[in-house]
Amino acid sequence: MKIILIGAGKLGKQLYRAIVLSNDLEIIQWVNRSSKKTKTSEGVPIVEEIGDIKNIELYLLAVSDESIGTISNSLPKEAFVVHSAGGISLSEIIQKRAGVFYPLQSFSKDRNIDFSKTPVCVESKIKTDLDILKNLAKSIKSSVFDMNSKQREQLHLAAVIVNNFTNHLFLEAAEICKKNSLSFELLKPIIKETFEKLETLSPKDAQTGPALRRDKKTINKHLKLIESPDLRSIYKVFTLAIQKKNEK
Amino acid sequence: MKIILIGAGKLGKQLYRAIVLSNDLEIIQWVNRSSKKTKTSEGVPIVEEIGDIKNIELYLLAVSDESIGTISNSLPKEAFVVHSAGGISLSEIIQKRAGVFYPLQSFSKDRNIDFSKTPVCVESKIKTDLDILKNLAKSIKSSVFDMNSKQREQLHLAAVIVNNFTNHLFLEAAEICKKNSLSFELLKPIIKETFEKLETLSPKDAQTGPALRRDKKTINKHLKLIESPDLRSIYKVFTLAIQKKNEK
Repeated sequence: MKIILIGAGKLGKQLYRAIVLSNDLEIIQWVNRSSKKTKTSEGVPIVEEIGDIKNIELYLLAVSDESIGTISNSLPKEAFVVHSAGGISLSEIIQKRAGVFYPLQSFSKDRNIDFSKTPVCVESKIKTDLDILKNLAKSIKSSVFDMNSKQREQLHLAAVIVNNFTNHLFLEAAEICKKNSLSFELLKPIIKETFEKLETLSPKDAQTGPALRRDKKTINKHLKLIESPDLRSIYKVFTLAIQKKNEK
Repeated sequence: MKIILIGAGKLGKQLYRAIVLSNDLEIIQWVNRSSKKTKTSEGVPIVEEIGDIKNIELYLLAVSDESIGTISNSLPKEAFVVHSAGGISLSEIIQKRAGVFYPLQSFSKDRNIDFSKTPVCVESKIKTDLDILKNLAKSIKSSVFDMNSKQREQLHLAAVIVNNFTNHLFLEAAEICKKNSLSFELLKPIIKETFEKLETLSPKDAQTGPALRRDKKTINKHLKLIESPDLRSIYKVFTLAIQKKNEK
């Protein structure tokens, strides 16, 4: 399968890496505006602008949500154009052969992702194109899930909740540790257990703590201990939400 | 070291298990009000009431926060009495020989905890008792950290944040999946990565997503997708908090 990969941000770099490691795939060109080289160390030609790319079947976009429409507009009408964004509908791609290839993962700078452990959500306007996307996923060793734009948008929301919001909780906890001369390392075992519990318990059955047991004394003590108004809001919102879930 | 263990809740059961597995420790009696047996399968005598226990040096309390004061009051004045609560001050124990032995972990029903991967926070009124608590921790293979009640209370708050609140986010995400006929399994790789990232990135550097990049379009779309008012509050509070942390 011959691919032109457009984009070299956090996701683009990881997709590049996964594709060049695959035996079945070939990147013909890579659109990477921030590169000063004309080809990668694997010999893939680098171009700066969309206007410089060849006419080829599969264009894989790893670009910002806002750019998807514009880039799709500038590509050949007969091409198969595929975006990789969780929160963007298939209909943003103007080509008849439109697709989505969304790896459900958190991509950070300088951290390589193992695609064999990353589910990829696929969707296509034309039914037969779905097999191409499934093969693409298989070639980078990912498991593949077929879903519509509505489901994918909800899944993207869920991913923001479990990744960005959880990570923010870690940041708040790290700041509490720092202020009190405690190592954040102390919290890593309980964080690990929070995740590992999911293997045997549902999140509902795994819940514990002062909010669940309506321990007002501890809740009030915690609210007094908290210095940051934002963290106090978070504490209150969670305490109420945990209690309400338990009523149901 | 001879111990009377008081309490057979989630923490009490795990402490019982860790202590009987240790070669250096011996449980003389176990106060377990919910047991119908008079001894455990390991031959440890079970008693129902505090009044039935022997006079011995070390009493280890794994009881609810509210009971610590009352139980301490009913124990011999010369004894060494140790509670295991994160959020309770050392001063709740009336004995001169007061101690705290707080395993920083999330204890769930029917889930065995590996104490070799659980840090234990210790504190004592009399300096020489600290070594006893450190030895107790070593005997169950835990790493041990010496801290005062103020630090421990803050650490307990941080533990509630990273465990209870994170778990609530998982519950919200699981409900989104269920409503949209998606498997929660899809989210497990990104949840795992959220945690594993901490090994190489600080929570601040690990942050990504629509809130951080002030992507109003996605944020508004998510707020529209959310059906539950509680989840909407959580989403708004986090979006603001993530943005504020990034301003600093």
